Amino acid sequence: MSPGDRELRNARAYLNRVAEMPAPALCDLVEVLGPVHAARQVARGEVPDAVAAEAGARRDDHRAEADLSAAAALGARLVVPEDDEWPDWSFACFDMPHARADERLRAPLALWVRGAARLDAVQQRFTAAVVGARAATSYGEHVAADFGYRLADHDMAVISGAAYGIDGAAHRGTLAAEGISFAVQACGLDRIYPAGHVGLLERIAARGAVVSEYPPGVRPAKHRFLIRNRLIAALSAGTVVVEAGRRSGARSTAAAASALGRLVMAVPGPVTSALSVGCHLLVRETDALLVTRAEEVIEAIGRIGADLAPPLPSPVRPTDGLSAELLAVYEALPARAPRHAEQLVRDSGVALQRVRAALPLLELRGLVSGGTDGWRRRVTRGASTGCGGP
Amino acid sequence: MSPGDRELRNARAYLNRVAEMPAPALCDLVEVLGPVHAARQVARGEVPDAVAAEAGARRDDHRAEADLSAAAALGARLVVPEDDEWPDWSFACFDMPHARADERLRAPLALWVRGAARLDAVQQRFTAAVVGARAATSYGEHVAADFGYRLADHDMAVISGAAYGIDGAAHRGTLAAEGISFAVQACGLDRIYPAGHVGLLERIAARGAVVSEYPPGVRPAKHRFLIRNRLIAALSAGTVVVEAGRRSGARSTAAAASALGRLVMAVPGPVTSALSVGCHLLVRETDALLVTRAEEVIEAIGRIGADLAPPLPSPVRPTDGLSAELLAVYEALPARAPRHAEQLVRDSGVALQRVRAALPLLELRGLVSGGTDGWRRRVTRGASTGCGGP
Repeated sequence: MSPGDRELRNARAYLNRVAEMPAPALCDLVEVLGPVHAARQVARGEVPDAVAAEAGARRDDHRAEADLSAAAALGARLVVPEDDEWPDWSFACFDMPHARADERLRAPLALWVRGAARLDAVQQRFTAAVVGARAATSYGEHVAADFGYRLADHDMAVISGAAYGIDGAAHRGTLAAEGISFAVQACGLDRIYPAGHVGLLERIAARGAVVSEYPPGVRPAKHRFLIRNRLIAALSAGTVVVEAGRRSGARSTAAAASALGRLVMAVPGPVTSALSVGCHLLVRETDALLVTRAEEVIEAIGRIGADLAPPLPSPVRPTDGLSAELLAVYEALPARAPRHAEQLVRDSGVALQRVRAALPLLELRGLVSGGTDGWRRRVTRGASTGCGGP
Repeated sequence: MSPGDRELRNARAYLNRVAEMPAPALCDLVEVLGPVHAARQVARGEVPDAVAAEAGARRDDHRAEADLSAAAALGARLVVPEDDEWPDWSFACFDMPHARADERLRAPLALWVRGAARLDAVQQRFTAAVVGARAATSYGEHVAADFGYRLADHDMAVISGAAYGIDGAAHRGTLAAEGISFAVQACGLDRIYPAGHVGLLERIAARGAVVSEYPPGVRPAKHRFLIRNRLIAALSAGTVVVEAGRRSGARSTAAAASALGRLVMAVPGPVTSALSVGCHLLVRETDALLVTRAEEVIEAIGRIGADLAPPLPSPVRPTDGLSAELLAVYEALPARAPRHAEQLVRDSGVALQRVRAALPLLELRGLVSGGTDGWRRRVTRGASTGCGGP
């Protein structure tokens, strides 16, 4: 690393420590002055009031070297916008949905990353976010794991929040397919959250990466989860909500994705399940797309034209494609007894001449056979029995 | 009944017997000549080829008097367009979806009706069709019965096909609320179909009506179910599909409803259920509205403005509506130990002056209380514990 690189990384580490995201005024300052100059001004307190409000309270926290060392000890690195692997965020700034004017968000100042994958892999792989409730049902966890597995199987990366429930199931499904998963944390990378996912986070880091906007030591807190959710949305091409209650963090991720112009998808479930209410509301009240299979996610956000979902297999009936008249003649034949054309006129309501024309057409289709005793139905699997209903 | 009335009803009963629906050319002829003159021409065979193809095969079936007598013996009547209770179909002709050009459908020539309700009650009561698979799951039957019950409870009529599964459950739910149900049959009213629903059909007739386009003696057959489905769609303001496989008669009802400009609604279910595939396809591939509660159906097709679905109750959290800054200060307070304002600066990332301003605002909301040892959180049900996640 060149001395300039080091200075730049230290400056961003310092700014990342002193400001609590969101820090729009500080981000604007960094945009204008560059990180090194901006860090110097912040440390001196020579900044506009708006920046001071965001970064002034902790401006004496000169822990950049310590944070970088702590991260290195964890096997983590600070990825900054000047790095090759910095993703193309495709947004300079965006509004947090329902946010007040002073809560506009910018792309992160830097990201702490622990893991084998490059950060820009999220875009090279058409990453999907798969998120949902912590108190998920076994149905939801099954679907999340299945989506994770199948998305990975199609070479997509899966990003989520590593929480219990849907998030964890999505990560596990991805890992089961030996796919790449990214977990975005709402705390420093030295904090394992949730504690029960220590092994899962290790496995995510081994093939993908665990990512956080927060420097080492920062504990998870409610407002950080909401800020974190926007990162999950921003890092993915689309967000799939698998299960969500009426009020759910997953819906905040969906709202952020929508505000970013990313596709929002929702998996339906039983209307009797409180954990599907949020998904159904997304479909009813927003532009969210209803998805039932990973292939539909791939089709929606995948490479255009290359990833059309294969149609579901459709049962074929021998009477498919018959005109109403041919069907009426066919239906007029009893299941087993033979009939002459004249006998079919009344029950089919079709004129004799047309019945006579219809029967050979039905024979060509293998539906009836003519004999000396008249015409009879051929027994075919799946053929109508005459009163099976629609 | 005047002699003219009788002649007219006999003519329509004759036409209803000799033509198998759909009979667009015959309907057009009746439109031009009136039913009495049209019936006379048909009986003589003095009609255009297109009409002869529809009504020629059975033109010697002079059973109008017998059919009317048979119906009367069942307690049924023939309702004709000239009757007061004939519904306003709001369509003169319409195309059966996916139909060939020669299968365009018209309003029925007449309808056989058995039951207490007037036929035009379907429109006066904002009738909803509730339809679905015969091989329904217990989930689907539960939802259909619940929708039937609640729609009836809101004074709406419910129309369905009296089949096993979803149809039957919808009728039963409606009857349980002492509501009015209409069942449309694909056979003569003397045929009980399905046989196991003999008691259900009796109960439907007692308060509502059992309706058919087919004269007495006509047996149910596959093509008649498809024709019947269009009647269900046409008689209702909107069609709710509760459960449907990938290929299901319920989807043909939905397609007919859509072609008629009626609203189509679909109830979601588990993506793991083959019986919800048809519902999910309707939402994904058509304009069908996803509905989860009867109130949403009422809102969609009910009297405009008078039937808005009440919002679902939403859990309220004490931290709702806090600005990001107030929330950050609140979250910086530990769950139990007190802190002075100065101690909150670092963890909240908020400047001291603004922390000092925030704490009294949080106190006004009852979230914190100040004492000689500093500020502490007030224990409130549902308040964040600081690491509960989103």
